[in-house]
Amino acid sequence: MNRESQVSVTVIRRLPKYHRYLTELIEKGISRISSQELSVLTGFTASQIRQDLNNFGGFGQQGYGYNVEDLQKELGKILGLDTRYNAVVVGAGNLGQAIANYKGFEDAGFKVLSLFDRNPRVIGLKIRDIEIRDMEHIEEFIKEHNVEIGIITTPKDSAQQIADIYIRSGIKGIWNFAPTDLQVPDDIVVENVRLNESLFILSYFLKTKFDK
Amino acid sequence: MNRESQVSVTVIRRLPKYHRYLTELIEKGISRISSQELSVLTGFTASQIRQDLNNFGGFGQQGYGYNVEDLQKELGKILGLDTRYNAVVVGAGNLGQAIANYKGFEDAGFKVLSLFDRNPRVIGLKIRDIEIRDMEHIEEFIKEHNVEIGIITTPKDSAQQIADIYIRSGIKGIWNFAPTDLQVPDDIVVENVRLNESLFILSYFLKTKFDK
Repeated sequence: MNRESQVSVTVIRRLPKYHRYLTELIEKGISRISSQELSVLTGFTASQIRQDLNNFGGFGQQGYGYNVEDLQKELGKILGLDTRYNAVVVGAGNLGQAIANYKGFEDAGFKVLSLFDRNPRVIGLKIRDIEIRDMEHIEEFIKEHNVEIGIITTPKDSAQQIADIYIRSGIKGIWNFAPTDLQVPDDIVVENVRLNESLFILSYFLKTKFDK
Repeated sequence: MNRESQVSVTVIRRLPKYHRYLTELIEKGISRISSQELSVLTGFTASQIRQDLNNFGGFGQQGYGYNVEDLQKELGKILGLDTRYNAVVVGAGNLGQAIANYKGFEDAGFKVLSLFDRNPRVIGLKIRDIEIRDMEHIEEFIKEHNVEIGIITTPKDSAQQIADIYIRSGIKGIWNFAPTDLQVPDDIVVENVRLNESLFILSYFLKTKFDK
């Protein structure tokens, strides 16, 4: 049992934001920042920032603030970005291809080894150097290549079936883009991306603001 | 000033989830549901569900529960899903094409009229019946076609510049997939999709759970 598992999900969900802001500061050549300055940047209060970061150890120093590079590196470790993960995608449509194509994920340690699909028109094609394979071979591929992350970019009706295949094959985490809840055992990590919900929120605020 | 603008963002962010669960219930032919049953389905407590929905009017009836179809329809109205929005996408890569291709958005009232890009190799191509046009013509297109939503699926370095073009052209809401914060005036609605952050959260929980 390590300390991090005690931290609330709300705090954890802010860590990637801190990491992003710190990365931008490094790109701008800024080496030191106070929690007050971080507050202006992130929109979180300075005391919330200090509390959040204290959950993971005392990074800041009174009167000095935070060393940007050290803090970014430490947060990266906490987020597991120093670890390398093998991933596959089921659903080689535009969204699946976009994920395979995005070098930013690979730079952060997530390597898409293969896409899988049932559509014979796309099987055999390559996205960058990543081949689209027949769904038929997915279980053996996952086992052979120690794939830990399974990505789902299919319509919702096939999502659960794919999750079941992933779990059976030994995958530990699922990144799910299908707009449905997956039923998985407790030891499988699921992270959902809800594009519909995000768009509906935009719609809500447009409606409320402009009373269209 | 309408009532909804007083409701907290946390509550509002749950509305699309309720809408999704209710839509699934309708698909299953279920016409009536109690807050207890909704609680099992959504993972929110029954009292939270009642509180959330009471913000928008008294939908439920003591001893009867909620009429699934009525509630789904009302939530849809609150979310603006009965309104039609015209949208454009800048960035006609895989992600932009995935958005243009996804019929689910159109069914919910969001019509992508055009994609825009600077890459001459894609200008003129069509995704379904949606043309990829030259960035040069974007301002006049937005004004001529009453486009209200601008979608950004470019790398982060060009995102602010595109946001500025959108704002200058009269767009009211931006759906931003670029991993950066946009600077916009108060009357512009921005909704961000943070794919990186979502992946990093998956990574965090994998690391914490499996101590890799």
